[in-house]
Amino acid sequence: MRHRLKDVAERAGVSVKTVSNVVNGYVHVRPDTRARVEEAIAELNYRPNLSARNLRKGRTGVIALAVPELDIPYFAELARHVVTAAAELGWTVLIDQTGGGREQERVVASGITDHLIDGLIFSPLALAAEDLTGLDGTPMVLLGERVDHGPADHVVIDNVAAAREMTAHLIGLGRRRIAAIGSQRTPEGVSARLRLAGYTAALADAGIDYDERLVAPAPAWHRADGAAAMRGLLASGVRPDAVFCFNDTLALGALRALHEAGLRVPEDVAVAGFDDIEDGRFSIPTLSTIAPDKERIARLAVELLANRLDSDPTAPPRELPAPYHLTPRESTLGP
Amino acid sequence: MRHRLKDVAERAGVSVKTVSNVVNGYVHVRPDTRARVEEAIAELNYRPNLSARNLRKGRTGVIALAVPELDIPYFAELARHVVTAAAELGWTVLIDQTGGGREQERVVASGITDHLIDGLIFSPLALAAEDLTGLDGTPMVLLGERVDHGPADHVVIDNVAAAREMTAHLIGLGRRRIAAIGSQRTPEGVSARLRLAGYTAALADAGIDYDERLVAPAPAWHRADGAAAMRGLLASGVRPDAVFCFNDTLALGALRALHEAGLRVPEDVAVAGFDDIEDGRFSIPTLSTIAPDKERIARLAVELLANRLDSDPTAPPRELPAPYHLTPRESTLGP
Repeated sequence: MRHRLKDVAERAGVSVKTVSNVVNGYVHVRPDTRARVEEAIAELNYRPNLSARNLRKGRTGVIALAVPELDIPYFAELARHVVTAAAELGWTVLIDQTGGGREQERVVASGITDHLIDGLIFSPLALAAEDLTGLDGTPMVLLGERVDHGPADHVVIDNVAAAREMTAHLIGLGRRRIAAIGSQRTPEGVSARLRLAGYTAALADAGIDYDERLVAPAPAWHRADGAAAMRGLLASGVRPDAVFCFNDTLALGALRALHEAGLRVPEDVAVAGFDDIEDGRFSIPTLSTIAPDKERIARLAVELLANRLDSDPTAPPRELPAPYHLTPRESTLGP
Repeated sequence: MRHRLKDVAERAGVSVKTVSNVVNGYVHVRPDTRARVEEAIAELNYRPNLSARNLRKGRTGVIALAVPELDIPYFAELARHVVTAAAELGWTVLIDQTGGGREQERVVASGITDHLIDGLIFSPLALAAEDLTGLDGTPMVLLGERVDHGPADHVVIDNVAAAREMTAHLIGLGRRRIAAIGSQRTPEGVSARLRLAGYTAALADAGIDYDERLVAPAPAWHRADGAAAMRGLLASGVRPDAVFCFNDTLALGALRALHEAGLRVPEDVAVAGFDDIEDGRFSIPTLSTIAPDKERIARLAVELLANRLDSDPTAPPRELPAPYHLTPRESTLGP
């Protein structure tokens, strides 16, 4: 068990403020008081952290948001919502861009949290459940699908249902040769696997045979990957009449590749994405997408973190679903 | 003057590690040694901060990057480059989104820096030079044009020259009714003023009269602002044959408004932006822009910060220019 400032104060029979003064090396502490506090620190093996700054609550007022890549606008937009929701509680949010690698994510989960911040909102790509065991109890809320039913509070959206709904939208428009862009075979590709599962489920619902030649992998989910994958599909001769991209940046890249190939969207090929980033509301054509409620996701994450800070840290982790909605635009419906 | 751990160590005649052990409340310090350290702490009025974690250098290994808005892709891309450059020095970067308000930026400049981090790379919008006086010496590097010749190291690009070059590019294509989108009259609008100055200088160079009806303000520099400003210009009857937008997101919004109005880019109206964000390399048409060397800006900022950490903190501040280049694409040159 990790002790807090108030444990030291109780043991020494002094106020939390006095303990803080000793820990911070301030001079205006009577020598006998200082000795009592130091004895309590030694007995409890107390390690001070920044929490001492916020004396009343024992907190820093700073939380971290760790995301894989700010270059993917979904995470930048999510960050803005987290900053807004946290500001209502008087919290400052520092954002850590992990790069999505497992080692860096492990460092974030186990290292930064201990000394700098009150808590962490974490959107991991690569982290596995076992990386989260043995943490020292810094409150953490996970976003996204990774580390299912893991040891922390979790805000999720139903990726399978959302992808199934978008694929059904394309089928409902009469498309039958529906490609998918963004599949991944790496351990990191959890969102990719879930969205692919939704895609295949929708095809099965409609009695359309799954054709693996229509499924294009993308090592990352940037515009360049989407453009390359689309060019590959066009060159392969599989002749899709629609393409469901597993995020909006892939879809914007696919739009570009279709434009360069002289194909019309949606007349020749309908295009759909996932994330509802601002870019897709202004692109030519505007982009049909799955819109996760990013504001709600951010608010739920901040609320889970606040509850965790104010309640029993050993309470069982909670998993809260966040809503999404299908948002059709020009890239599937036309002008 | 703010004392560091090593000042306490010298005064007490002990190692920095021993001081750290006392400051951190560890138990394995001999009582007489502890007393000597505490006496030195009192004499120097030393206030420990997280620097104690990195004992050898007296640092945390964590720096902050403070930017106005991660939603503006320029800042998200810059953040990635700062994270990369800092990683080479073993630093972790935490990103603070200030919102661009002067009060929040003042808090960042004076507050967070003191306790959490070794140094700060700061791209302020609203901060004035006087807000930076009286800081406690946490090393800071400023990015951008604000706080000219202020009290900190500074990485700048020449906004006037870059805007003049882009406007001359449009003139060189035979355009004469060149609009500008993004002017701002607020104290925050320093980049806007400089880019407007470059625009007017280029017009003067070419003997083209300045027409204030062609200059459209934009309260913020998002896509929606660019689209609204473009619609306003078209509705006003000023009939521009080109538009220079003060950043790329404004330009992407203008492209959308022109598309909705049935105008062709660049045949009817050539469009140029500023920032070279990834979106503009995939938009339809691709976007002509000024490309600041973001990687170089990030590297210079990290190097300035490292130098400041390793040398005399009272050395006079340095101002380093970063390169940019004009990058013409389809939105001015055609397919």
